[in-house]
Amino acid sequence: MALRLGAIVEALGGELQGDAELNIARLAPLQNASPDSLSFLSNPKFLKELASSVAGCVIVSPALREQAAARGAFIVTPDPYLYFARLTQHWKRAHARPDGPRIHPSAVVDPEAVVDPTARIGPLCVVERGARIGAGTVLKSNVTVSEDCQIGARCLVHPGAVIGADGFGLAPDRGTWVKIEQLGAVRIGDDVEIGANTCIDRGALEDTVIEDGVKLDNLIQVGHNVRIGKHTAMAGCSAVAGSAVIGPHCTVGGAGMVLGHLTLAEGVHISAASLVTRSIHKPGQYTGVFPIDDNAAWEKNAATLRQLHGLRDRIKALEKK
Amino acid sequence: MALRLGAIVEALGGELQGDAELNIARLAPLQNASPDSLSFLSNPKFLKELASSVAGCVIVSPALREQAAARGAFIVTPDPYLYFARLTQHWKRAHARPDGPRIHPSAVVDPEAVVDPTARIGPLCVVERGARIGAGTVLKSNVTVSEDCQIGARCLVHPGAVIGADGFGLAPDRGTWVKIEQLGAVRIGDDVEIGANTCIDRGALEDTVIEDGVKLDNLIQVGHNVRIGKHTAMAGCSAVAGSAVIGPHCTVGGAGMVLGHLTLAEGVHISAASLVTRSIHKPGQYTGVFPIDDNAAWEKNAATLRQLHGLRDRIKALEKK
Amino acid sequence: MALRLGAIVEALGGELQGDAELNIARLAPLQNASPDSLSFLSNPKFLKELASSVAGCVIVSPALREQAAARGAFIVTPDPYLYFARLTQHWKRAHARPDGPRIHPSAVVDPEAVVDPTARIGPLCVVERGARIGAGTVLKSNVTVSEDCQIGARCLVHPGAVIGADGFGLAPDRGTWVKIEQLGAVRIGDDVEIGANTCIDRGALEDTVIEDGVKLDNLIQVGHNVRIGKHTAMAGCSAVAGSAVIGPHCTVGGAGMVLGHLTLAEGVHISAASLVTRSIHKPGQYTGVFPIDDNAAWEKNAATLRQLHGLRDRIKALEKK
Repeated sequence: MALRLGAIVEALGGELQGDAELNIARLAPLQNASPDSLSFLSNPKFLKELASSVAGCVIVSPALREQAAARGAFIVTPDPYLYFARLTQHWKRAHARPDGPRIHPSAVVDPEAVVDPTARIGPLCVVERGARIGAGTVLKSNVTVSEDCQIGARCLVHPGAVIGADGFGLAPDRGTWVKIEQLGAVRIGDDVEIGANTCIDRGALEDTVIEDGVKLDNLIQVGHNVRIGKHTAMAGCSAVAGSAVIGPHCTVGGAGMVLGHLTLAEGVHISAASLVTRSIHKPGQYTGVFPIDDNAAWEKNAATLRQLHGLRDRIKALEKK
Repeated sequence: MALRLGAIVEALGGELQGDAELNIARLAPLQNASPDSLSFLSNPKFLKELASSVAGCVIVSPALREQAAARGAFIVTPDPYLYFARLTQHWKRAHARPDGPRIHPSAVVDPEAVVDPTARIGPLCVVERGARIGAGTVLKSNVTVSEDCQIGARCLVHPGAVIGADGFGLAPDRGTWVKIEQLGAVRIGDDVEIGANTCIDRGALEDTVIEDGVKLDNLIQVGHNVRIGKHTAMAGCSAVAGSAVIGPHCTVGGAGMVLGHLTLAEGVHISAASLVTRSIHKPGQYTGVFPIDDNAAWEKNAATLRQLHGLRDRIKALEKK
Repeated sequence: MALRLGAIVEALGGELQGDAELNIARLAPLQNASPDSLSFLSNPKFLKELASSVAGCVIVSPALREQAAARGAFIVTPDPYLYFARLTQHWKRAHARPDGPRIHPSAVVDPEAVVDPTARIGPLCVVERGARIGAGTVLKSNVTVSEDCQIGARCLVHPGAVIGADGFGLAPDRGTWVKIEQLGAVRIGDDVEIGANTCIDRGALEDTVIEDGVKLDNLIQVGHNVRIGKHTAMAGCSAVAGSAVIGPHCTVGGAGMVLGHLTLAEGVHISAASLVTRSIHKPGQYTGVFPIDDNAAWEKNAATLRQLHGLRDRIKALEKK
């Protein structure tokens, strides 16, 4: 299962300094590498690991050519992390085991669903009436794609994801709730990845839209009529409430949350565990998190925080004197 | 598939001003409506959208009769949003496609479960021994209803929901954990909606109880022995820890969380992302969220927050002088 | 289905004061017990419930011997809560109904997976190629165990859990994301419990590791290459981002979150809804939560919080005068 170093460079480019005949048996982090491992260094703060690593070869940027040469074989490429990403894909293809059936016999695919002949539907998936699954898209196990929802080409949907459950639409009526039937669907573009147990709700009247290249981690909630712009990435446990519009090239950290009907401009980055309560029109990093502390210190500061507005008034009063 | 405007008003009431013969091909928001669309206006801040909309007909409140008349056909009703909710239900019924089988052949229903003949069990659901599913209730796909759990009438359970997994009960024993078997079950009332991938744990000794009319969004965690009162609604990613009692007619915003063993009175509303750390006995809106800011401003304020108690002492000292 | 009190004490130990022939029909909390119930008291703040309870027998610590004797039959044991935990296990075994098939016929188990003959695979589970399921381990319904992932002995995995979906690995490339294939797997030790719809991602190059005795509640996200130390327990909706290392004997409260690449020492306890943003090397309880308040008070304090750094400067200026 080993790959020749020369064959890797032929496939992925980069300048190899070292023995092209070396057989690479695995990809490994610098500190755990063995002489048959290929490693990479993308962050200069790991330079020390480079010097001590026994990896058979290391991928580095041009700036680190000398340090790498002092150690042994290396591949020079402008962006080692990107090279490494492509290498993992190459590696996976080279080691692929034979695929199972295109549509697993345990999957429940409605006869009125349209599944591209190159798509793969994993075990125990449900693809409902009117749903469309595009070319090369893979649904892993236990995925539900509900009525009339569309997934584009080359998407990857992880186990347990639910595409097209009803949005949470309720009208109050004398102390009870009357359901608003969700008549829209979900439209997902190309090259989208959707994490395990993530939920994307169908729209109320129009569709919920996930644009091309969006990457969603696990356990994410996307409400009805949300639009997520191209190449935006959201980390695990984050959420976007109904009708919010997230621009392209945004990121949302883990457990970050955007309230309903808000708009985030292109290039807005929300830190982990931060709640977005107003639209953000300017690119940048935004945060709202209570800093963690040992519990005793937190208790004191939190108690004082509940009197903060009063403290401000006392400062004002002192200033007047 | 179009519905005659007159037929809609015959079914749902309201006062029609306009051509009862107009065929309505879709329901649409004001700004995206076409001449064969029926729209609604429930929030006066969208009055501008009303004037410019080309919708064939608009549902409005009596107060907006004049503005609506200036534009074209309209239906007057005291609560346009509620009317719209009922309209979506009417629309869905009118456009219903033939149902699949009552119990999908891929579902795994234990012979000792009791499923009402009018309930529907979707593909790849699991209904375990002793479970009871009431009249008219629908389980979508991949739902699990565990041993001895009960679901009432007219409930809707979305894909991936798990009713009756074990509560998280552990007794410490010299550095390890000893499992407390969860001997209770889950009892869910009538007219309850449960979102995709939401989890409701079974009780330790007695049952976890979800009362009539409760509405739970996606990815919600309800711990063991919780009781949620009638017509309470919880938004996505919220959570209630074990043995908490939530009163009727409460709301919990997205990612809001209630700690264990607490009580919330009737009519308590918890804002999104807020953590309830003490029982709340008075109705009202409650919030605890660090306000989001650009990251640099947040960093300064967060750093100062960690010294807040000290600042208070310094203010006190200044006041003494 | 009742158990003789004497038989319980024979099985579990403890000193019985009372009629060994009493038949116990159920385990119940003190306040809802009946004369055929066995209850326990572990927290002295429920002493009042002890006095008024009509339970047939009560489990107490030696310190409460007198109060218990004043009421009726009792069992004395050094740790009543632990005794109660063991009792629930004994009760469950005694009342066990016949098991279903060892591997449910609806489960999809790859021929190249290795399932111990004493493990149980529930309905609609997926066990992929190369996965290993250890002795006595139980997968409930709709669980996915992905390629090459290992689960040890005596584990319990609740419905909808996903073991071994891809970690969230992406390299940026001119505004788009390039997937880093996740070539590692997940290794889970013995005696681990994994809650409903919880996700544990496979590693990028090496494995994600969950050590022996770890207990994970529902809807938890564990990122790639995380390591969780022995006997650590995490409550519902919590999360650990990629490459974080959680020590043994830690706890994380509900919706608590640990950012990527951090380290928590042994015996660190994170409060509910707190975000860990730096490594913690000292055991103890750590918290970072905005205290909840009525919304009006919160608004004032939150607004002032956004000027907190400026307030500090004003205090400094006052002090200089």
